[in-house]
Amino acid sequence: MKKLMNDAYTIENDMFSGYAELYKDKIERIANTGIFVSRTKKKQVAVISGGGSGHEPADVGYVGEGLLQACAMGPVFIPPNAEDVYKAIKAADQGLGVFVIVKNFEADVKSFMLGIDLALNDGHEIEYAIVNDDCSVESDSYKKRRRGVAGTVLAIKVLGAAAFEGKNLKELKELSETLILSINTLGVSLAPGILPTEKNPMFELSDEMVSYGVGIHGESGYRQEDYHSSAVLAVELWNKLKSQGDLKKDDEVAILVNGMGATPQMELMVFYNDLRQLVELDNVKISFVKIGNFMTSLDMKGVSVSCLKIKDPMWISYLNMEVDGFGW
Amino acid sequence: MKKLMNDAYTIENDMFSGYAELYKDKIERIANTGIFVSRTKKKQVAVISGGGSGHEPADVGYVGEGLLQACAMGPVFIPPNAEDVYKAIKAADQGLGVFVIVKNFEADVKSFMLGIDLALNDGHEIEYAIVNDDCSVESDSYKKRRRGVAGTVLAIKVLGAAAFEGKNLKELKELSETLILSINTLGVSLAPGILPTEKNPMFELSDEMVSYGVGIHGESGYRQEDYHSSAVLAVELWNKLKSQGDLKKDDEVAILVNGMGATPQMELMVFYNDLRQLVELDNVKISFVKIGNFMTSLDMKGVSVSCLKIKDPMWISYLNMEVDGFGW
Repeated sequence: MKKLMNDAYTIENDMFSGYAELYKDKIERIANTGIFVSRTKKKQVAVISGGGSGHEPADVGYVGEGLLQACAMGPVFIPPNAEDVYKAIKAADQGLGVFVIVKNFEADVKSFMLGIDLALNDGHEIEYAIVNDDCSVESDSYKKRRRGVAGTVLAIKVLGAAAFEGKNLKELKELSETLILSINTLGVSLAPGILPTEKNPMFELSDEMVSYGVGIHGESGYRQEDYHSSAVLAVELWNKLKSQGDLKKDDEVAILVNGMGATPQMELMVFYNDLRQLVELDNVKISFVKIGNFMTSLDMKGVSVSCLKIKDPMWISYLNMEVDGFGW
Repeated sequence: MKKLMNDAYTIENDMFSGYAELYKDKIERIANTGIFVSRTKKKQVAVISGGGSGHEPADVGYVGEGLLQACAMGPVFIPPNAEDVYKAIKAADQGLGVFVIVKNFEADVKSFMLGIDLALNDGHEIEYAIVNDDCSVESDSYKKRRRGVAGTVLAIKVLGAAAFEGKNLKELKELSETLILSINTLGVSLAPGILPTEKNPMFELSDEMVSYGVGIHGESGYRQEDYHSSAVLAVELWNKLKSQGDLKKDDEVAILVNGMGATPQMELMVFYNDLRQLVELDNVKISFVKIGNFMTSLDMKGVSVSCLKIKDPMWISYLNMEVDGFGW
């Protein structure tokens, strides 16, 4: 499978140039980096996030009023280095501190923690949250993986809006703790993606199978099974999410149905139509829903469902607040 | 390649149900049809469009204030029947007439013309435009194909905004005539899509080739060539568009870079970065640009570039006007 690219080793830089030019009125790229800073400067706690490239529109698409004040992106599937995290913090800080949202992957956590250390030494006030919404399990140990995946977008939306509304660092930290415990995500691949540097897909998957529990870095899932239909897939995902999220009759949820990069909207919509019927049958109320490509994995064909159990009606207001990032 | 679907023969209906539920506050589906009507009723000339399914977010994503007041969608790659076109006209008409935007495909033109006849007999005032932006050529005769493809989205945006601003039927007709002559589109496939009813791709394309001049119904192009890079592709497309659109130094253009369904944003952005450099080198001014999936072809991987030569500064205002359709 061919890609629209020129050189696998400059692909992220070519893309950063494209974004910087296209959205120059709204975001500023720090030259020669994957750091993007919002041009709107409001006196508020700045919220930032970031990670490797290959997940577009994440994270650059979430830089803007009411979302992130900056993001730091690295090469494909590789987090930005600590120095870039530090630079993003410095560029975003309006004097009221910076809240950092990190996806739970070993390399990401390491880079971001080092970057935060540099910023703390420099006198910035910082709090952070590590999003670990993936509730799939390891094939061998059955331990939950708890990687940070598409649910991160819901965390960015809620925390970004709360910061915009004037919450201070401590309040954001408290909010993040309840929030992150309330998000569960499960992903399924129908066809693996391919790294720009490689010719072959990131894992093997026959034309009749799907892979449950895939990550956003092309990781294969915990189980491959025959693919039957969108409806059967929806049943399996919803049952798992319901039990992981301890969802009962009359509970309220926000749902994000996320395409992994190569899933057309037609198919996402068919799948959502199956999913929502199951949710309604269980008398769980969908108070917010969003469908599209939000946290992708290169050109993987697949879908993930993130389910946020609503524990505070303010979360719905935060999710509904008008914001400015092009990816939302 | 698997699809998120249940039955190839109900896929559009399942999708329509999903859209109807998801956007119920903004659009209303006429039961058991692919007709969607905006819930906002403004006293203006109503603009409608439509066509087969498989091009999402077109056309339902363009129903909303400042865009279309209704759309009529058919099964995958099959236009709505004349009766549905008529129903959409009837539902949209606020007493000031209806302007109908049709994509130039034989079956579409036939259905829409019959539907318009039914509506005229019923006393509706109607004008229409047939968009024929595709400037690729037939393999044998070298005649231009002039199908209606992604440039239709630019036509919908400009005419929708003009109608919202109060233009009457005659003025819209005049505007459409200049506008449509000013739009050229060229598409390239990196990998063909697959019909829901079929197991095999719609045409053959080796892993090293791309197909120039593809349509939005999975039609193969006029020439297959070795694929080199995004930059080489951008050169070829820009040179053609420049000559077809008679573009010279200091001309202004609006550009739509359109993914065909399975193209990740990363790749669209890399391609845009190449394209814009060529446009700038020619001293052609990009006054408006939009990048994403707007007029897709199921799960085809590919890209099309639509180029609208700006002949009236109002067109830029119309393109920039805030509107409400979820697909824009």
